[in-house]
Amino acid sequence: MASMGELQAEIQFLRREIQVLKDIEAIKQLKGRYFRSIDCKLWDELADCFAEDAVTGYLNGREHYEGRDAIMKYLKSNMDMPVLTMHQGHQPEITITGETTAVGTWALGDYIITLKNKGIQCAAFYHDEYVKIDGRWKIKSTGYDLVYREMWDRNETKSLKILDRMHQPSSWEGL
Amino acid sequence: MASMGELQAEIQFLRREIQVLKDIEAIKQLKGRYFRSIDCKLWDELADCFAEDAVTGYLNGREHYEGRDAIMKYLKSNMDMPVLTMHQGHQPEITITGETTAVGTWALGDYIITLKNKGIQCAAFYHDEYVKIDGRWKIKSTGYDLVYREMWDRNETKSLKILDRMHQPSSWEGL
Amino acid sequence: MASMGELQAEIQFLRREIQVLKDIEAIKQLKGRYFRSIDCKLWDELADCFAEDAVTGYLNGREHYEGRDAIMKYLKSNMDMPVLTMHQGHQPEITITGETTAVGTWALGDYIITLKNKGIQCAAFYHDEYVKIDGRWKIKSTGYDLVYREMWDRNETKSLKILDRMHQPSSWEGL
Repeated sequence: MASMGELQAEIQFLRREIQVLKDIEAIKQLKGRYFRSIDCKLWDELADCFAEDAVTGYLNGREHYEGRDAIMKYLKSNMDMPVLTMHQGHQPEITITGETTAVGTWALGDYIITLKNKGIQCAAFYHDEYVKIDGRWKIKSTGYDLVYREMWDRNETKSLKILDRMHQPSSWEGL
Repeated sequence: MASMGELQAEIQFLRREIQVLKDIEAIKQLKGRYFRSIDCKLWDELADCFAEDAVTGYLNGREHYEGRDAIMKYLKSNMDMPVLTMHQGHQPEITITGETTAVGTWALGDYIITLKNKGIQCAAFYHDEYVKIDGRWKIKSTGYDLVYREMWDRNETKSLKILDRMHQPSSWEGL
Repeated sequence: MASMGELQAEIQFLRREIQVLKDIEAIKQLKGRYFRSIDCKLWDELADCFAEDAVTGYLNGREHYEGRDAIMKYLKSNMDMPVLTMHQGHQPEITITGETTAVGTWALGDYIITLKNKGIQCAAFYHDEYVKIDGRWKIKSTGYDLVYREMWDRNETKSLKILDRMHQPSSWEGL
């Protein structure tokens, strides 16, 4: 039979194991919110995903920005218009490295329909760092290395029709 | 040193935390079974994913059905034929809201090859409610808002060949 | 009030529940590493994903290989060249069947750009067995059944340009 002290130590151990599982799940949901906010153009919700001192290295590190404000300015300059985007993340490999730190890798598949009806498609791998601030996980650094990125003119496909779109050109001013 | 009562309360707390993690995982697997059953045309397995009083709001709410029977009739009317479909769900954001209730968001990427060789592709976000009945999670309500949906004639791509297909036209009667 | 023995049994029960959740997460990360190693051509890291006596049944069972060495030889013969590949796995349905055994189903979406600029795309469902060896999960058997697989000549799309690629033709000898 175990002693009280042994049971208490055991419970403490299980609590830490559960915390790791909860942290992994919370980070997956953070990244889900990040991708969803981009595609739905929910800029405030997206900004909330980043730590204030976050840095990026998108496009093989070419798109490097420092600080949440600079990152948001960059992201909005590319997407705060009726461009249609799909960013989907897969196969998270998250490692909790401390009580408030974690790293993770994600596969990315994205597809963009530009205002001029170009298609841009890529596959890539994200490499992220996360930090827990006041009990909530945030993106501390993020970026991706491309497997490939390609572009084509969607007008070439004569029969191609968009049947539904979330972001209507007519609802954007100044185009 | 903690008292027996304190240890017991602690254990009770951990048990609830573990239950939440188990519920989230069970709901992810429910949704996986749902998508797999659609694409493999496993209609009984698909029907089992829904609560009897489930409702749908597919296609921005336009495809609204009430009750498992009406939902299954709709789904089969669209897919119980050798149309090839791929429905893939990503980035689950599941929240357990009670012992037997939960809500969740998923990104959807789908691709359909119709009997007339049209291609239909979409990206969307699912908004689901789940309910636990007799210890098993079921879909209580489901639907999605489209980011985009597009269609084209696959015959335009002269070199396009299907090398393998799960659902053979020849195995369907009456086409 | 519970007795010491009851508390101990309860803790033991929770420990097993946590272990199942940890095992499921570890297997998801194993499969993530597997896909990432394929697309990044990390052959040693990929080989480490397989048990020594692993077997495969890729392409509806047609690509059957026995043993890690035979599997790696097959995979490298298809991909150890500057072909660009994207293999993405979705909706894991993992079941832990024992302390060191598990089974799982995954949806696969893949896209391949061959050296001759053919595009090959498929959707499939993986059926896997896993085994835990010295505390680490490995793939014991793996294979997939195709929903569809199609091929086309990417040269047909006149405007199609690859903007970035991870694997450069010029870095491969003997092409």
